[in-house]
Amino acid sequence: MPETDPPSEELKVSTPEGAEVDAPALLDHLLEVNDLSGLQRFVYDQPAGEMARAISRLTDEERSQLINILPAECGAYLVEELSVEQASDLLAEVSPAKAAEMVDPLPSDAQTDLISRLDDDEAEAILRELDPDDAYEVRRLASYEPDTAGGLMAAEYLAFFQTMSVREVVDDLRTNASEYQEYDVQYVYIIGKSGELRGVVRLRDLVLTPGDERIDTIMIRNPTFVRDQDDLSTLEQFFDAQFFQAAPVIDEHERLVGVVRRAAVEEAIGEASSKAMLRIGGIIAGEETRSMPAWSRALRRLAFLAPNIVLNLVAASVVAFYEPTIKRVTALAIFLPILSDMSGCSGNQAVAVSMRELALGLVKPNEVLRTLWKEVMVGLLNGMILGTALGLVAYAMRGEQFAWIGLVVGAALAANTVISVAIGGSVPLLLKRIKMDPAMASGPILTTITDLCGFFFALYLATLFLPPLPPD
Amino acid sequence: MPETDPPSEELKVSTPEGAEVDAPALLDHLLEVNDLSGLQRFVYDQPAGEMARAISRLTDEERSQLINILPAECGAYLVEELSVEQASDLLAEVSPAKAAEMVDPLPSDAQTDLISRLDDDEAEAILRELDPDDAYEVRRLASYEPDTAGGLMAAEYLAFFQTMSVREVVDDLRTNASEYQEYDVQYVYIIGKSGELRGVVRLRDLVLTPGDERIDTIMIRNPTFVRDQDDLSTLEQFFDAQFFQAAPVIDEHERLVGVVRRAAVEEAIGEASSKAMLRIGGIIAGEETRSMPAWSRALRRLAFLAPNIVLNLVAASVVAFYEPTIKRVTALAIFLPILSDMSGCSGNQAVAVSMRELALGLVKPNEVLRTLWKEVMVGLLNGMILGTALGLVAYAMRGEQFAWIGLVVGAALAANTVISVAIGGSVPLLLKRIKMDPAMASGPILTTITDLCGFFFALYLATLFLPPLPPD
Repeated sequence: MPETDPPSEELKVSTPEGAEVDAPALLDHLLEVNDLSGLQRFVYDQPAGEMARAISRLTDEERSQLINILPAECGAYLVEELSVEQASDLLAEVSPAKAAEMVDPLPSDAQTDLISRLDDDEAEAILRELDPDDAYEVRRLASYEPDTAGGLMAAEYLAFFQTMSVREVVDDLRTNASEYQEYDVQYVYIIGKSGELRGVVRLRDLVLTPGDERIDTIMIRNPTFVRDQDDLSTLEQFFDAQFFQAAPVIDEHERLVGVVRRAAVEEAIGEASSKAMLRIGGIIAGEETRSMPAWSRALRRLAFLAPNIVLNLVAASVVAFYEPTIKRVTALAIFLPILSDMSGCSGNQAVAVSMRELALGLVKPNEVLRTLWKEVMVGLLNGMILGTALGLVAYAMRGEQFAWIGLVVGAALAANTVISVAIGGSVPLLLKRIKMDPAMASGPILTTITDLCGFFFALYLATLFLPPLPPD
Repeated sequence: MPETDPPSEELKVSTPEGAEVDAPALLDHLLEVNDLSGLQRFVYDQPAGEMARAISRLTDEERSQLINILPAECGAYLVEELSVEQASDLLAEVSPAKAAEMVDPLPSDAQTDLISRLDDDEAEAILRELDPDDAYEVRRLASYEPDTAGGLMAAEYLAFFQTMSVREVVDDLRTNASEYQEYDVQYVYIIGKSGELRGVVRLRDLVLTPGDERIDTIMIRNPTFVRDQDDLSTLEQFFDAQFFQAAPVIDEHERLVGVVRRAAVEEAIGEASSKAMLRIGGIIAGEETRSMPAWSRALRRLAFLAPNIVLNLVAASVVAFYEPTIKRVTALAIFLPILSDMSGCSGNQAVAVSMRELALGLVKPNEVLRTLWKEVMVGLLNGMILGTALGLVAYAMRGEQFAWIGLVVGAALAANTVISVAIGGSVPLLLKRIKMDPAMASGPILTTITDLCGFFFALYLATLFLPPLPPD
């Protein structure tokens, strides 16, 4: 990918080392006094992280002011430095013509990422302003699912017909050097008559081979490739197994349609795992930043909390059903939250192990029984140890009152640990099989089921031990 | 990085498409009949993921049999395909001489990763068998902290003195082509007399520039670089802001000491976030796979569960203290687990948002007050909504008995939601400030504090509302 350099060195100001600039305050001030050259200097001068932080603090109006005041070239530099989310927010604030000018220096995959985040109307308006070839590539790339080889590939690659000579290829590279500046040239792809992939030539072999031979004599035949429909986990496995920095992408007719870079795949995996982490944390309604208004953030979090409170009430209904038992043995109320928390923790551990094994390919989604068995063994061991520990504590605390309470609480925790790890270990595999996110397993549903079972075990057993009430 | 190709095409057998091979069963069978050529075919033929899965299922004895029977060349191929964990397990099973032969084709950073996972004695024995230059590089790289530029960099790079001509550089590249095969050549670095970094020449500029000029006329001056001590988050920001595939690494004397590739950084970030996810899931004692024996996995999980049960007992002590209140209003027992779970969820959401903002650089570790304020606003809103909802449910369920119970439960949840998000949002920043893992915030400590507070609010308020007991 190309880098858009700052236009001149003079624009840079140096900050004495160690002197910390408060980027958000500085940007605020520059916008307030509407200092154009100061703002440009800010954009070219701040590290990307500081710039992202400062821009995330702006109000919608300030953001619009910033991007509209900056010349397109400086805006292009800014858009390259920021994350896709922040960059597309900025694009939405300017005229389609300026937006097109700002995305023009980017490679087609980056253009596609940015433009496809906009509303359809805005995207269409920008595409109409873009160079028609570029617009065609963006539309083509946007037609693929995001996390597939097609959706991640770039359209900037170099392909030559296999009948050309090494010299012809090198001459073409020299002649079009300035155009190819924006290409990430490491491999040159060799194609047959109708575009089908025949081989790969490493750039270094071009440097090292003098010129009259046919290019296909120095190409690597039967090159590895990925297919445009390959999903993220296939791509991950591919790049794990190969040390290539990029791979050609072919369509169903074996034609070369793009190039997917290792870095693009690594980045997509990183984003997917960061989303998974947010979801595990209970942030399900897309990405939240603290620059959003409080009510909108509250609403997003409620999307997770509101169903959760309902599920909690379902589990609590077991406790309500056995209220008479609690009335007679109030000590049980002390241990119910412990049962709930410990079972939840054991279940989440099993989910974490399953997710890791799925990610590393150490387990296949159809190996549910094997996983179940392996987890139950661990659950039995930990259930016995934890159950005994909690049982002894309960006996020590309330033995004088009800000698059997330790047994009841311990047995309930032991049994529920087995159930929790069995569910936690196997549900991620089942979710993966039906193409859902395995991280969903470590959520409120798991907790509800383990709560239900845990409360039931403890309270049912306790009721068994209680002598019948004397008739009124 | 180089790829070690299978030595000949004949070794490959093709599987009819769609016919699924059960890789673990096949490997098991091949080991049982001790079929050397079958095992070699298996290694060269299976996709990396299947091979990893099959090897993870082997017993220690089978693993040792496999790697000892394979010729070193095939073992080298295998080691390249597997993850560092699995590969270093295999290296530990063979003689130092064979291990050295197996790691020989790898670049120095991969050699270092593998060898530094072994015991000191084993590592030393392998280093003595290795080519002395390679061994020196491994020792040099191993002296850096793992997640720094020095720890992630490779020692294979091309550097030329600035006084050389373009032709001399190209001639050197041609002459040493076979040696440089194992280099990831995209940039050529230009150094001054004592090794200090002066500039960078892109390989494509070498291709495109004819030769008598001095190399420093076509180099990019003031090249971007990273310092050997830079940590992972600095490297992440660097590569986020730049589109380079690799960056030169310099030491405190500005001397070029290595090259760090974008892919190595992305991979290290991925590993760090996968470890963070495991820790959030409660797997703290290193990486667990289901091929480990059940008792050892149970023990590893207990490392997290055992302290957790103690913390749970601490929180439960509040409930024990107010047992007389529960005796009189048993309905409270129904709502305590709900309070505990809902507060935990709200707190974890705040942790997840803080971790994401820290990772993206949208918040700095010292912005605790700002984060606290932003979270408290969200906490107030959600606290009021959730508290009202739970309060109404409680009133509906038990209003006939104690009309005030809805108020007590609702107020406790509202107040505790504010506390949870305040802790959950700010503790990751504080942990980051003292260089600890912010993911630790979403753990048992958070839950214990929010449980303590939630139980206290509900039970203290309830006690206030209760009329004094008649004297015995």
